[in-house]
Amino acid sequence: MLRRSAPLTNTDLVLGVIGGMGPQATADFLAKLVAVTPVGVEQEHLRVLIDSNPAVPDRNKAIAGNGVSPAPALEKMAVGLETAGADMLVMICNTAHVFEGAIRRAVTVPFVSIVDEACDACARVVPVGQHVGLLAAPGCIEAGLYQEALQRRRLKPVLLSPEDQASFNKLIYEIKLGAPTNGIAPQMKRLADRLVASGAQALVAACTEVPLALSQQDLSRPLIDATRTLAERCVRYARRLEPIPLSYYRR
Amino acid sequence: MLRRSAPLTNTDLVLGVIGGMGPQATADFLAKLVAVTPVGVEQEHLRVLIDSNPAVPDRNKAIAGNGVSPAPALEKMAVGLETAGADMLVMICNTAHVFEGAIRRAVTVPFVSIVDEACDACARVVPVGQHVGLLAAPGCIEAGLYQEALQRRRLKPVLLSPEDQASFNKLIYEIKLGAPTNGIAPQMKRLADRLVASGAQALVAACTEVPLALSQQDLSRPLIDATRTLAERCVRYARRLEPIPLSYYRR
Repeated sequence: MLRRSAPLTNTDLVLGVIGGMGPQATADFLAKLVAVTPVGVEQEHLRVLIDSNPAVPDRNKAIAGNGVSPAPALEKMAVGLETAGADMLVMICNTAHVFEGAIRRAVTVPFVSIVDEACDACARVVPVGQHVGLLAAPGCIEAGLYQEALQRRRLKPVLLSPEDQASFNKLIYEIKLGAPTNGIAPQMKRLADRLVASGAQALVAACTEVPLALSQQDLSRPLIDATRTLAERCVRYARRLEPIPLSYYRR
Repeated sequence: MLRRSAPLTNTDLVLGVIGGMGPQATADFLAKLVAVTPVGVEQEHLRVLIDSNPAVPDRNKAIAGNGVSPAPALEKMAVGLETAGADMLVMICNTAHVFEGAIRRAVTVPFVSIVDEACDACARVVPVGQHVGLLAAPGCIEAGLYQEALQRRRLKPVLLSPEDQASFNKLIYEIKLGAPTNGIAPQMKRLADRLVASGAQALVAACTEVPLALSQQDLSRPLIDATRTLAERCVRYARRLEPIPLSYYRR
């Protein structure tokens, strides 16, 4: 509705963003989307509808069985974005992709998976059979989201030790609370280096809080920033430079 | 609709953002809003609905009589945000506030003016009768938005010379195209220094592209960042720490 009535300078698809988990990560995605979109004039940037809803229940707690499911909230956000005119959806939270089935069943527009896009990006830089280190939230690890997606691409996931994973979990909650990232960055780098020491040929920032505190120049191996990868892929899909995979539609 | 159906952890008002002018500025606003919101847990952040629509026609061209009016697009975005559940609206583009009357007439929820909030902030740091330097887009200057709002507060606007304003106009269009801000920052600082040399006791970043290339540490006088000021005020209004001024409602 919104989309049809506003002046269009192009025929790009309108992107709907299920966000707010945390809201910093949503701002980071929008900034990266703008940065990776080739334009000759402001009006050529993609239209983006964002529902930044930090009240979505904690995904890690829900997956651990210690909290209510975020699925009903995510479904309603997705429906709201489709109603407002979104032609394709993304969700700026890797762990929340545990609930992507519910989202896909609630809408008719495609839902582009940050997990699949990040793992495709890994497969472009890491040879078959090699190891990819995961910097991911506890719910994401517990659900095996990235482990399975990597294995489907014949890549081997490398996880943090339980102790290091516990340290990582603390860090991401500190980032969510807006702690200054310059205090957190060295600790994040230390954890990333552990994954490299364990044989990782590349690392995935598989939690949207990670790139807020870790960047490529901190690391001796390629860092796949899932947020940035998703942004790059959205530009290609929205501009129809590549077809949206059928697996991203309701099924 | 969205708002009622999603789980609420608090009773904060939902903020609707008319954005995309440019989209970098909208991302900057969201990042600043998150940074200035006091929270004990992620779920306490404000819910924000954003329509980042870069296809809105160029405001400066419209005001200069060289382009179509952005008003119809802005009205429709505002209505869409209210329909989606926004309790209050803001627009992340100072110059577009030339068309705020049309937006206010289109919706029933309050529209919080970035111009009024920034000028209130000036009045808190600059004594009556003193001068405030304006870093604002040509359409904003031509329409007298900030000049009148400052004069109503008994402050005196200081403008760039026509030559410097022309340089400034070029800079903001470069920022909109994503030019690296480290090349632009020294030029922006030079223009700000000119305003100080002309007697400005404080400066207003009265164009949302300005704070992307200029910050307080570059300057010898207080810099009022309209974007950040708006974010701070939105938190207070959304949490009902202060009543929303009656002037922000439809009239």
